[in-house]
Amino acid sequence: MTTAAATDLKAEILKMGAQALAASRALAKLTTDQKNAILLAMADEILAREPEILEANARDIAAAEEAGLTSAMVDRLRLDGKRLAAVADGVRQVANLPDPVGELMDEWTRPNGLHIQKIRVPIGVIGIIFESRPNVTSDAAVLCFKTGNATILRGGKEAIHSNKAIAAALAAGGARQGLPEYSIQLIPFTDRESVRHMAQMDQYLDLIVPRGGKGLIETVVSLARMPVIKHYDGICHTYVDKDADLEMAKAIVVNAKTQKPSVCNALETLLVHRDIADAFLRDAGKALVEAGVEIRGDDTVLAALDGDAKPAVEEDWTTEYLDLILAAKAVDSLDDAIDHINTYGSHHSDCIVTRNDAAAERFLQEIDSATVFHNSSTRFSDGEEFGFGAEIGISTDKLHARGPMALKELTSYKYLIHGTGQIK
Amino acid sequence: MTTAAATDLKAEILKMGAQALAASRALAKLTTDQKNAILLAMADEILAREPEILEANARDIAAAEEAGLTSAMVDRLRLDGKRLAAVADGVRQVANLPDPVGELMDEWTRPNGLHIQKIRVPIGVIGIIFESRPNVTSDAAVLCFKTGNATILRGGKEAIHSNKAIAAALAAGGARQGLPEYSIQLIPFTDRESVRHMAQMDQYLDLIVPRGGKGLIETVVSLARMPVIKHYDGICHTYVDKDADLEMAKAIVVNAKTQKPSVCNALETLLVHRDIADAFLRDAGKALVEAGVEIRGDDTVLAALDGDAKPAVEEDWTTEYLDLILAAKAVDSLDDAIDHINTYGSHHSDCIVTRNDAAAERFLQEIDSATVFHNSSTRFSDGEEFGFGAEIGISTDKLHARGPMALKELTSYKYLIHGTGQIK
Repeated sequence: MTTAAATDLKAEILKMGAQALAASRALAKLTTDQKNAILLAMADEILAREPEILEANARDIAAAEEAGLTSAMVDRLRLDGKRLAAVADGVRQVANLPDPVGELMDEWTRPNGLHIQKIRVPIGVIGIIFESRPNVTSDAAVLCFKTGNATILRGGKEAIHSNKAIAAALAAGGARQGLPEYSIQLIPFTDRESVRHMAQMDQYLDLIVPRGGKGLIETVVSLARMPVIKHYDGICHTYVDKDADLEMAKAIVVNAKTQKPSVCNALETLLVHRDIADAFLRDAGKALVEAGVEIRGDDTVLAALDGDAKPAVEEDWTTEYLDLILAAKAVDSLDDAIDHINTYGSHHSDCIVTRNDAAAERFLQEIDSATVFHNSSTRFSDGEEFGFGAEIGISTDKLHARGPMALKELTSYKYLIHGTGQIK
Repeated sequence: MTTAAATDLKAEILKMGAQALAASRALAKLTTDQKNAILLAMADEILAREPEILEANARDIAAAEEAGLTSAMVDRLRLDGKRLAAVADGVRQVANLPDPVGELMDEWTRPNGLHIQKIRVPIGVIGIIFESRPNVTSDAAVLCFKTGNATILRGGKEAIHSNKAIAAALAAGGARQGLPEYSIQLIPFTDRESVRHMAQMDQYLDLIVPRGGKGLIETVVSLARMPVIKHYDGICHTYVDKDADLEMAKAIVVNAKTQKPSVCNALETLLVHRDIADAFLRDAGKALVEAGVEIRGDDTVLAALDGDAKPAVEEDWTTEYLDLILAAKAVDSLDDAIDHINTYGSHHSDCIVTRNDAAAERFLQEIDSATVFHNSSTRFSDGEEFGFGAEIGISTDKLHARGPMALKELTSYKYLIHGTGQIK
């Protein structure tokens, strides 16, 4: 673990902030072709440095095993030739994505002749705070870079050697094609206080993106002086309406719960209209139980499942299990379903299964979530699945970016106004 | 002054938050016609209650005079029949503006058949914290209402009686046309702690907008757990290039400095290319001095103005005078001008005066400010002047909203996805 004396730490992070701001000015002037050439050189350098990166990773793995981390946690840390090739490939993919910077978003002429243009520009300097997985270093940095932003990255202490090796490869590869110095900086200290210093330096950082557990996000939110984009929870619901195609509903529910239960867009709470609850649960409930799902239900659910479910308690409606556990409940109406989701949900991704278009439209309009689905799995709430080509995260905030965030969401705008001497 | 016991205050504000959240769900369902009918009823009620509102205002004025406020401050507080008619007229104008809520911002179909729509929705609950002028109560509340947002308003203690009377008129008038209860709430306490409680309740407030002095904004930024949209300063520059039309430059500089010096888009720092500094300053400087402007300049400026200027100190480059004072300086090049503005400016509104289109384009691209002008006064940095029809403020932030903020900037979006049983 690398630490620094308290006063040095703050000074060091402030220095990185000033360097990032200077780099951001240079980045804003790069053309799309220059940025893409830099990205390809970064990808090449990651592959060229495979031995150093894997050696650094081996040090992290050894430390993690010594510290007694679970095998799942150690696996998240681990890099190998194949995983590193995927990291480099991700960088190449970003080079192939369209560059939103410079886009003319709108333009108009005022009666006094002033011509106003609204154009897309980089945000400036973005801070990314993340935990464990070392590939985030590259994924986050290159998305920010493609959109002309400088980044300051602060990874978890478990991956510090891997993160340093990857950041060094990005900087060295990029430099060969003219990457401005300090465009991508990794904080080399793992002190917890570095999060505080980042979150407070709003003279340099325009945005901070915490990626990790609720504790990390809570800390960043309570300290930050600049905008934070985040999601705390993905408590995603599927409501099976009385007019649902029950076979379709079963397939959607099983998929949303079991295909990858550890992710934020997986199903956590099932709501079923009382009229079809028994029929649906006897069939779909059985399929879920066979897939290894523990069901926690209300009385209707318990009765339909004949002992294959446990009683749900209030806490179940607000829990993101990220596991093969499902809260389930009968509701009396579409209104009840909407009320339940708006009250207990996390405003992430929710679904209605129904053949009734009027019910679907009401659900889509009234559910206050980033993404609302009709007749499809919540697992599609994802930048790749939206066709964005990449994703830096999913926002449950309502300001600036909501839902999957990709390149466009890493930009701001400004107004350019041409006049001929207009005065007021 | 109205105060509350500390525990009651927090409970009371949390209760208002929960009420606002419930109101926001009802507001999101109103049609544009319903909202417009409510707005017109609000305007009528403000006029109908003129005697009560002016009586409440008289109590504020008496308290202000007793407390020894300056006559300028007392005048900002004062309402009369004409000013109240203007408030009501402002509400009617908002009824006439197009409603951005429900706008289909984008839509596309994925290869798997999922149809994705991005639609504009209200943000939810917006907190507005403002100082002195009572008309802000109405201006801010109706813009938020038109976009389907609930508001919690916290005005300054000097205008508490006027604010209460205006908020009561809006609520009563609106109620006649179906305004959901608690859509517009004014915090009836003037304790400073109420700002803290508002800024911390991110379970209810989606956004907080502080309007007032730097001290107020600093406090809100340091306490807030939700996004804050604000501007600290308007340190606006005009750069007179060597290729400027000097008559046009003089008119723009005099207008931007003197037409209304107390506002955020007024000129604060003049930069002049060294090649034309002497010629320009001898003419335009004289015009400024005749208009009552105190000039604080560097050596070039002092020499050109023959004793009509004072020496500038470092602090002058970062001061928002909001008064008839101008910092002025010669620069060696376009690059020097850009560097000065990006270093000392507040990223609000800056202008280049030149006949050289290439220089103008570089300036517009490279100045990192919300609004960048070519050959026109920075005084046009304003929602009305942009054609937005209204303005809730000007943002120097880069996230969500930058520059003049009107109705569109008071909305968020969500994704509606229609499928036919797609699973992953």
